[in-house]
Amino acid sequence: MAAPANSTTFSGDVWAEFRLADARDVPHLHSLIHQMVELEGITDIFPATEELLASTLFPSPARPPFTSFTALILDLSPFPVVQDSSSTIASRRLDLSASPLADPEAAAFASPRGGGRVTAGFVICFPNYSTFLSKPGLYVEDIFVRAAWRRRGLGRMMLSAVAGRAAELGMGRVEWCVLDWNKNAIDFYEAMGAVVLPQWLVCRLSGAALDKYKGNQEEAVDGKAAE
Amino acid sequence: MAAPANSTTFSGDVWAEFRLADARDVPHLHSLIHQMVELEGITDIFPATEELLASTLFPSPARPPFTSFTALILDLSPFPVVQDSSSTIASRRLDLSASPLADPEAAAFASPRGGGRVTAGFVICFPNYSTFLSKPGLYVEDIFVRAAWRRRGLGRMMLSAVAGRAAELGMGRVEWCVLDWNKNAIDFYEAMGAVVLPQWLVCRLSGAALDKYKGNQEEAVDGKAAE
Repeated sequence: MAAPANSTTFSGDVWAEFRLADARDVPHLHSLIHQMVELEGITDIFPATEELLASTLFPSPARPPFTSFTALILDLSPFPVVQDSSSTIASRRLDLSASPLADPEAAAFASPRGGGRVTAGFVICFPNYSTFLSKPGLYVEDIFVRAAWRRRGLGRMMLSAVAGRAAELGMGRVEWCVLDWNKNAIDFYEAMGAVVLPQWLVCRLSGAALDKYKGNQEEAVDGKAAE
Repeated sequence: MAAPANSTTFSGDVWAEFRLADARDVPHLHSLIHQMVELEGITDIFPATEELLASTLFPSPARPPFTSFTALILDLSPFPVVQDSSSTIASRRLDLSASPLADPEAAAFASPRGGGRVTAGFVICFPNYSTFLSKPGLYVEDIFVRAAWRRRGLGRMMLSAVAGRAAELGMGRVEWCVLDWNKNAIDFYEAMGAVVLPQWLVCRLSGAALDKYKGNQEEAVDGKAAE
């Protein structure tokens, strides 16, 4: 299937598998996160390390998926997916016969699962809580597909699968954030049934502004301070 | 201390204790959530029930605080707080001698901890995850103080304590949302060191739009669909 030097061309049928990640996926996850951060225009700092990802996403003992931070991987395979009930979340056949796909990064992103699979994207999500509903929901922190594999329905496949799993778990909402200039993404999300809530603003305390609350043993005596 | 009928007046010294909630706090939590929802202008539907709150916030076995959904209660006491290392998060003396405080709901919100305490507010928070930092953070879903107890520094006490705990746990960020018309709240949060991120929009999939993804076994064969 090799075409232009250093590029792998996929044609005919390929199979997408959206599956739970494990510690073997950490190197690719780290590279994919770096690509995503570049896309968001942040390139000067990149604090993520493989060590941090491994310890925070894949602690021992493992936690059941969707009950804490949950990483999922999108692999593409030249062979039909053999469903693994312990890790496969969704699968799909893609017919590329009408438009073959060149992936210049296929070698670098060879899946740790082997068998000619390449890793093409990821999702990170975790439970959130709606006080209004008094129910857990699912927050999708990231959804990312490498450039070569975009516009093939794979983002929709991943978000649909995550939403389906949340609904089956009895969760009340699936939520995520989008940058306000990303009209394509907003249109895509609205087409999937999501509503955008522009009245809510995200507030963030981090870095030195957060650290100054460390060891804060407030002992102020004050009956009149502004709340 | 009784003053106008059905109102309790607090004067001189009172002591605020911000502590982990437990199942005994569910009835007051439910009432406080109802007050908060009214404040946000939503009164026609109120799906929260005491049963749902109890099962989602206080499952058995209990989870360590700040590792999952965590509810905290603000109690005011006529007596100094006896710190309980297993539940006290912060405490503070309030000097009300210059401006006594009438709480018309004091009887209804008698704390389940007894001793003349009244419950005056709550916080619900849970861990979130920053892929960029590859670290957990803390998301504050709600922070609420009953009307009688506002503008006494208690909201600041609670948010400071939660931020302090997050920083001590090595978390990278504390985040929450604010309604864009709530200028007082935005000013308060910025004075505490938070930055507001207006470029991020919250997207939400819920209700029937979410349920339609249930049992979604996507088997589409499509190499060209829009991502």
